Amino acid sequence: MSRKFVVAAAQMGPIARDEPRASAVARMCAMMRSAHARGAALVVFPELALTTFFPRWYMQDAAEIDQWFETEMPNGEVKPLFDLARELKIGFHLGYAELTPEGRHFNTAILVSGQGEIVGKYRKIHLPGHFENEEWRPFQHLEKRYFEKGDMGFPVFDAFGGKLGMCICNDRRWPETWRMLGLGGAELVVLGYNTPLHYPPAPEHDHLQYFHNELSVQAGCYQNGLWAVAVAKAGVEEGSELIGGSVIVAPTGEIVARCVTSGDEVISAEIDLDRCTEIRANVFNFALHREPQDYALITAPK
Amino acid sequence: MSRKFVVAAAQMGPIARDEPRASAVARMCAMMRSAHARGAALVVFPELALTTFFPRWYMQDAAEIDQWFETEMPNGEVKPLFDLARELKIGFHLGYAELTPEGRHFNTAILVSGQGEIVGKYRKIHLPGHFENEEWRPFQHLEKRYFEKGDMGFPVFDAFGGKLGMCICNDRRWPETWRMLGLGGAELVVLGYNTPLHYPPAPEHDHLQYFHNELSVQAGCYQNGLWAVAVAKAGVEEGSELIGGSVIVAPTGEIVARCVTSGDEVISAEIDLDRCTEIRANVFNFALHREPQDYALITAPK
Repeated sequence: MSRKFVVAAAQMGPIARDEPRASAVARMCAMMRSAHARGAALVVFPELALTTFFPRWYMQDAAEIDQWFETEMPNGEVKPLFDLARELKIGFHLGYAELTPEGRHFNTAILVSGQGEIVGKYRKIHLPGHFENEEWRPFQHLEKRYFEKGDMGFPVFDAFGGKLGMCICNDRRWPETWRMLGLGGAELVVLGYNTPLHYPPAPEHDHLQYFHNELSVQAGCYQNGLWAVAVAKAGVEEGSELIGGSVIVAPTGEIVARCVTSGDEVISAEIDLDRCTEIRANVFNFALHREPQDYALITAPK
Repeated sequence: MSRKFVVAAAQMGPIARDEPRASAVARMCAMMRSAHARGAALVVFPELALTTFFPRWYMQDAAEIDQWFETEMPNGEVKPLFDLARELKIGFHLGYAELTPEGRHFNTAILVSGQGEIVGKYRKIHLPGHFENEEWRPFQHLEKRYFEKGDMGFPVFDAFGGKLGMCICNDRRWPETWRMLGLGGAELVVLGYNTPLHYPPAPEHDHLQYFHNELSVQAGCYQNGLWAVAVAKAGVEEGSELIGGSVIVAPTGEIVARCVTSGDEVISAEIDLDRCTEIRANVFNFALHREPQDYALITAPK
């Protein structure tokens, strides 16, 4: 496969609490067709793309919680997306809530090839939010309650003619995420997010949400010399406004495409994985310029 | 001392090869008076602020090299700056080339209190550039030749009513620098830089130099919830153009003041160290959200 190809970001507008997965999948299929029409080899969907962002609600009943999770991938409701990918020969990235046969819960993302095969999986490591119901909040952010921390590290996969890594939402804010993927050799990082515009513990920063999203992704790309596709679920979802601003970012940190709505929207850009070298052979030549013996605190136990 | 005070950035225009240190010191004294007139408790000068940026030249003769280094701090030529600081009761940060009694060479910065006492010292860890003369370059960048890597880690000092850290120039591009300082508790990071506009190994990025400077400092501040003052030596120095764009950045990553010339220029801003908490108690609450067990590659030997 060529090292130069088109990638697409398929931002999604809100998914209602009672919207069936089949409806979300149909919306994704429509965007997959749009991405394919632009020549995309890979289309990136958001975090937890099959349902509404359920961690905004406090739930205690196990069955009520587990209804938001997938026990198989693909399952019957998601199969049309895999089938269409195979038909169009387009790869995709999809985030979903995973319930394992052992009863473990993860915030997961997969990478699917243009042959409809799952070629990579990642489980979110930096879970934001809190464990317990906090009634003072207008809405909850209970990811720490509903998910275990990912147990797969930050894997990098041979796919799409290069090295691909994944992360999910809050992971993108942490430079450690990008560095682990960069040290693993990633040339393209794909990720989805559900980021509320309103952050109850520090509402004085609400107007900075779009800025912080871009700052985190741009810095991660530049400081590791890699491409990124960062894709939102956006818009007012069950009364909670989620930011949009999905972006495709170059290894220089430059934004090469950006969504301008808060609904279902496809953007695309031609990327060239060989451009990573411009950064990695120079300013961020890790072998030449990193000084890991001086970073001990970063891996010291908390 | 109050946790809310004024800091100033004293950007310097070029220093000629034959310009005596006394002249550079006189320029700094003038800017120190300007900073004091604005109520600044601390004024930040650039990296290697006493001389021209000598690593642009290849030198083999030890005496020729050592003339650019200071064997004492303060020495007679720099003493007027210390005296003025004591008179005005203003602290300062100064970068210089340090030659130790043991004959070791470092790219060093110090923090000086409003009583004229050296209260902190840092030796640059991320040395950019190369070791050998590379004749194809229009100018050299021989920091790896003339300096040893710093041997003090990333110390954080109790000063100016808070916790202060330092880094130097290329250090600011590395997220590890900021994370080490953030984990050390720094609330304000001060730094100087000499950044050529033209980067010979990847000239296709020359137009991004100002962007990369701001991206690195803003990400470092946001991702660690701290203030920074980043100060250039700027302008066309001995035929080599250095970027300006000195900035004062808030813990949100927002730029609160920015130089607009490439000459001697003072900017200032009132900073409140207590604002670090807005970030550190929330999105970047390290105790709650960092996952150091998943960062092993970052400190693995190269």
